[in-house]
Amino acid sequence: MNAAVTETRWLNEVTWDDQGLVPVIAQDAATGDVLMFAWMNRDALARTVETGEAVYWSRSRRKIWHKGEESGHVQRVREIRLDCDGDVVLLKIEQEGGIACHTGRRSCFFTRLHDGSQWQAVDPVLKDPKDIYK
Amino acid sequence: MNAAVTETRWLNEVTWDDQGLVPVIAQDAATGDVLMFAWMNRDALARTVETGEAVYWSRSRRKIWHKGEESGHVQRVREIRLDCDGDVVLLKIEQEGGIACHTGRRSCFFTRLHDGSQWQAVDPVLKDPKDIYK
Repeated sequence: MNAAVTETRWLNEVTWDDQGLVPVIAQDAATGDVLMFAWMNRDALARTVETGEAVYWSRSRRKIWHKGEESGHVQRVREIRLDCDGDVVLLKIEQEGGIACHTGRRSCFFTRLHDGSQWQAVDPVLKDPKDIYK
Repeated sequence: MNAAVTETRWLNEVTWDDQGLVPVIAQDAATGDVLMFAWMNRDALARTVETGEAVYWSRSRRKIWHKGEESGHVQRVREIRLDCDGDVVLLKIEQEGGIACHTGRRSCFFTRLHDGSQWQAVDPVLKDPKDIYK
């Protein structure tokens, strides 16, 4: 088998959806906190492995998105996992700056359902987004 | 405001995709391990809150799926979170039987990328699926 085939076989083993994407969960490697959820295409996953930093596919901007390219809040990848159907990726990461969310919070999942009837923001803003995105 | 409106407002605050679904991450409430990933429609999320157990929408079978209905491996929901865009749900759960995956493993994310080139199953099968799904 030639090198090119070997290099891309693991990418072929991912079950890409009909848009060529796979959902990705980013989890703090140390604390286990789920920090964010995003999508990758084949190129994004390949670049994530090459660079050791999370590279996603932005569905809204329709382009490759190196997480932290503006904010500096890059995600250093410690481990990559795939689920039993091969169609979901889990990244265990080290979050630069301790802030994954564009709102300036540690995690994007800062909203909790209270009493089964009301969403409440329960985690603090660590840094004003105006100071993150200058 | 009448009761019916109050009861469903929190469901309206979820950003459902064009198929009326939202991706859901199920995380072990005690250990922080990510156990599985699935989808919910509005009815599934409402039933999850009503029953206190995870109810998903099976995209392959196109029906409501009360997790554990066959295996007994129900997921008792301790907390429900929503992400910053309102389009991803995080469940913190207590996993009955300690097995979330249909392969008999604790987590569906038992496959790890080794050396950036090879997927390897690294977590043990705790129970033979033949003994789970009789």
